[in-house]
Amino acid sequence: MASLPKEINDLTDAFSSLPNVGPKLSARIAIYLSVSAKDLAKKLSESLESVINNISKCNICGNVTNKDICSVCEDDKRDKSIILVVEDSLDLINIESTREYRGVYHVLGGVISPINGIGPDDINITSLVKRVEDEAIKEVILGLNPNLEGDSTALYIKDQLETARPDLQITRLAKGIPVGGDLEYLSGQTIIDSMKSRINF
Amino acid sequence: MASLPKEINDLTDAFSSLPNVGPKLSARIAIYLSVSAKDLAKKLSESLESVINNISKCNICGNVTNKDICSVCEDDKRDKSIILVVEDSLDLINIESTREYRGVYHVLGGVISPINGIGPDDINITSLVKRVEDEAIKEVILGLNPNLEGDSTALYIKDQLETARPDLQITRLAKGIPVGGDLEYLSGQTIIDSMKSRINF
Repeated sequence: MASLPKEINDLTDAFSSLPNVGPKLSARIAIYLSVSAKDLAKKLSESLESVINNISKCNICGNVTNKDICSVCEDDKRDKSIILVVEDSLDLINIESTREYRGVYHVLGGVISPINGIGPDDINITSLVKRVEDEAIKEVILGLNPNLEGDSTALYIKDQLETARPDLQITRLAKGIPVGGDLEYLSGQTIIDSMKSRINF
Repeated sequence: MASLPKEINDLTDAFSSLPNVGPKLSARIAIYLSVSAKDLAKKLSESLESVINNISKCNICGNVTNKDICSVCEDDKRDKSIILVVEDSLDLINIESTREYRGVYHVLGGVISPINGIGPDDINITSLVKRVEDEAIKEVILGLNPNLEGDSTALYIKDQLETARPDLQITRLAKGIPVGGDLEYLSGQTIIDSMKSRINF
């Protein structure tokens, strides 16, 4: 029985290790790159090397950067007394795209998830506690995804921050009906959240 | 407004160029590789280089190989008088996994698809015609996917082969109900195909 060359199987294995990329798609990509698209394979390989050599976490907030300090933290116009806590840099970029928020961030690099073996020490919580202890932070906004892991991570962080700085204001992003949402199809919990947080009209 | 470092955007662009990988997933992969999984990034980059340097198409059939001739074509036990024509090497591997077929292959590297700008000269048809002209081929089995592009590619190849070798036997894989298929949900065309190709029981 004929099989694929080892080089292609190795590449398939590497692609399969990526999040949300299954083995069938990986094999298709590996074959595509090895015969039809060697130029793209070269571009991918060079981009990977460039990322390996130049990208690290911001020393202050944990955001991705090609310097020691990320572009948000080094920006003098940002309000350094408000920290918005997010799971990863993609959340940060989406929030930045609104051009509304003028504070700074803290990027956890994940959420607490016992089922995936991720505990509090595996994400950047200690550095957040240190920031609120050392700097003149007025408010920490918890901007984690509203699901089981995001909510329990937010609760854990709240406890840690309250212990470190009892005077600190801790908030979280509002839960409710998203723009374009349809009451007919929203989850019960979303409707309950939007009822609890209703405001005068 | 803060944005991602150029290195990460370049990597995102490269991933987006892969088949079936969208921009959102690409960005998530790029961030994951640049902060959480530099080991995997290194492994990917090395696997890509290995594929770039070592993999090419078999000089005879177009299958992927790390030598001049692929493992099927160089196998003395295979029947070289029957050629099974497939779209790509993944189809070949899946057919090989049945351990039923003992002939050789011809890998087109795609199908004719005017909408994607792929004409007859962009896939390995000329080399197939040359094989049936030069070698003692008795039968060519067309094993393309049963869809518009696969069927029209099969028809085109049939015309070319008949012109080159009027005595050649040309067959195609049977269309019908797949094992585990449910009559209630099968497409009308599949049912028609299975009626036309019905056999004595």
